[in-house]
Amino acid sequence: MELKLHSPLDMHLHLRDENMMKLVTPLTTETFAGAVVMPNLVPPVTNLEMLHAYEQRIRESAQGHAFDPYMVLFFKDYTEAELAAAKEHMIGMKLYPAGATTNSEAGVAQIDSVEHVFKMMEEMEIPLMVHGETHGFVMDREAEFMSIYEHLATSFPKLQITMEHITTAKAVEVLDRFENIKATVTLQHLIITLDDVAGGMLNPHLFCKPIAKRPEDREALLEAALSAHPKLMFGSDSAPHPISAKECCGCAAGVFTAPLALARLAQLFNEHDKLDNLQAFVSDNAQRLYGVKPPKKEVTLRQESYAVPEAYEGHGHHVVPMHAGEILDWRVVEVS
Amino acid sequence: MELKLHSPLDMHLHLRDENMMKLVTPLTTETFAGAVVMPNLVPPVTNLEMLHAYEQRIRESAQGHAFDPYMVLFFKDYTEAELAAAKEHMIGMKLYPAGATTNSEAGVAQIDSVEHVFKMMEEMEIPLMVHGETHGFVMDREAEFMSIYEHLATSFPKLQITMEHITTAKAVEVLDRFENIKATVTLQHLIITLDDVAGGMLNPHLFCKPIAKRPEDREALLEAALSAHPKLMFGSDSAPHPISAKECCGCAAGVFTAPLALARLAQLFNEHDKLDNLQAFVSDNAQRLYGVKPPKKEVTLRQESYAVPEAYEGHGHHVVPMHAGEILDWRVVEVS
Repeated sequence: MELKLHSPLDMHLHLRDENMMKLVTPLTTETFAGAVVMPNLVPPVTNLEMLHAYEQRIRESAQGHAFDPYMVLFFKDYTEAELAAAKEHMIGMKLYPAGATTNSEAGVAQIDSVEHVFKMMEEMEIPLMVHGETHGFVMDREAEFMSIYEHLATSFPKLQITMEHITTAKAVEVLDRFENIKATVTLQHLIITLDDVAGGMLNPHLFCKPIAKRPEDREALLEAALSAHPKLMFGSDSAPHPISAKECCGCAAGVFTAPLALARLAQLFNEHDKLDNLQAFVSDNAQRLYGVKPPKKEVTLRQESYAVPEAYEGHGHHVVPMHAGEILDWRVVEVS
Repeated sequence: MELKLHSPLDMHLHLRDENMMKLVTPLTTETFAGAVVMPNLVPPVTNLEMLHAYEQRIRESAQGHAFDPYMVLFFKDYTEAELAAAKEHMIGMKLYPAGATTNSEAGVAQIDSVEHVFKMMEEMEIPLMVHGETHGFVMDREAEFMSIYEHLATSFPKLQITMEHITTAKAVEVLDRFENIKATVTLQHLIITLDDVAGGMLNPHLFCKPIAKRPEDREALLEAALSAHPKLMFGSDSAPHPISAKECCGCAAGVFTAPLALARLAQLFNEHDKLDNLQAFVSDNAQRLYGVKPPKKEVTLRQESYAVPEAYEGHGHHVVPMHAGEILDWRVVEVS
């Protein structure tokens, strides 16, 4: 069996910087036509100059593949002039609650202190992307954040809000209730629960933020993805860490899925007889919701066994992907 | 401030075997007067000869400290003659659902297939100790097992049942409802929640089975312990693993607390102004509930800073304890 995907998009991606960027960028640009690149570098991407420079570095790392990086500013208290200057060069701004995830220390401590920025974004039609977690108990953080999404959606009815990497059934409900809210979901949150992270042995390579939740949460997310929910987009949140930061005492959060995401998604959608809906999930929804026009790229996948590498190495880095050393049922056979 | 504890007991302990046993046994026998030693070796302790030999090896590893190991047979389908022969040499039998935790592969797959053994144990007054987890979702496993405890407690009303290492508010409720059910609780489950295991960085040294649960679960356990609940006993479940099995891809379950347990408990009980209740929790309840008479041992603890070692090393092993490298407020200053 074969499937052709047209201009697949990854609407939530971490490419890091320097040598790690050089290693992982081609692993995305080979098969994806575009990706929303998160700005949580150290220091974060907080002005137009940094944004341009980062975009340039990404393009140079793409090994000539047709690929559009959709750049994102790290949310902070910008002036109207700064926003006006940046607007045409970015797809949106990403808000991190301070300390919620990797490199988010510069994030927002008090949401209500930056409402004037939301107001400007609403008026200027700049999308807001949100890492939606409180600082509560780990299994409740996303659910507790829903009241903040509701507040934002109703207070700023024309602000376009993306709930990034949703992990709960509650988020799917909120997605359905507010016209100006859309969402991304990762590969791993369609597949795993907390059982896979900490139910048997502890598995650092499946540890991410937000953490994988309960079986009923996964079911709600999977149902929304498989049915090509019109406001749900694939966003891998693929997040490479050096192996030294994963297999150690106190490991960092993030699952690296970029190189196998399309093959694994094809396997998943095929298992549920929903292959026809994958194109919407990995590209069409995002094109419509964000109005982006990615370069033309046709990716052919075939139902054929594919051994996921144990690691991707290069530029002094060694990154372990999800499903390392396992055999998938689908593979990418051609990109044109 | 000082506190004297008389003959403290650890009612749930893993001493392992061979070199690991030689390293960790004195770290318990130095301050504890007795301990219930779990039988999940590889292969498990399933006959009187193995039990005697294991007891002998433990006594030889105790470096001359006054200490009684309370031996436990690994639950299986024993004959009445086997039980009769073993009864005087053990404190009880430990039932593991197959595969629920470290070295439990030989455990029971179907509880209802061994009810005749429970019947014999009831008649012969042999206590039953249970690792109470189903194979469900990791956060639900203990709560789901409560119906099995209820079934056992009502079907065998004279069978003495210990819920080992309880981790949930639900287990505290069951403890209060059935006269023939008692329980042990660990140090870590009085202190940590899942947040400490996977809320920030992933912490393999706080990963154990049953996994630490929600804040409201910890509160219920702590309240029961601090109030010297008459059917709740300290059982550290201290479970050493070589560092190679903890800080790796897929780490083993178990927290090593033996050498610092009494100091940390004194600190905890003191923080809540409940020092007077610690003696019941760490010894008197167990003596009354099991009818054991441990050797006399007086442990003096003082409110004084104590740097927990980064690791305990010896016999070719390297074991990282809970609170490694941290400063506690209390320490053991004398044992007599």
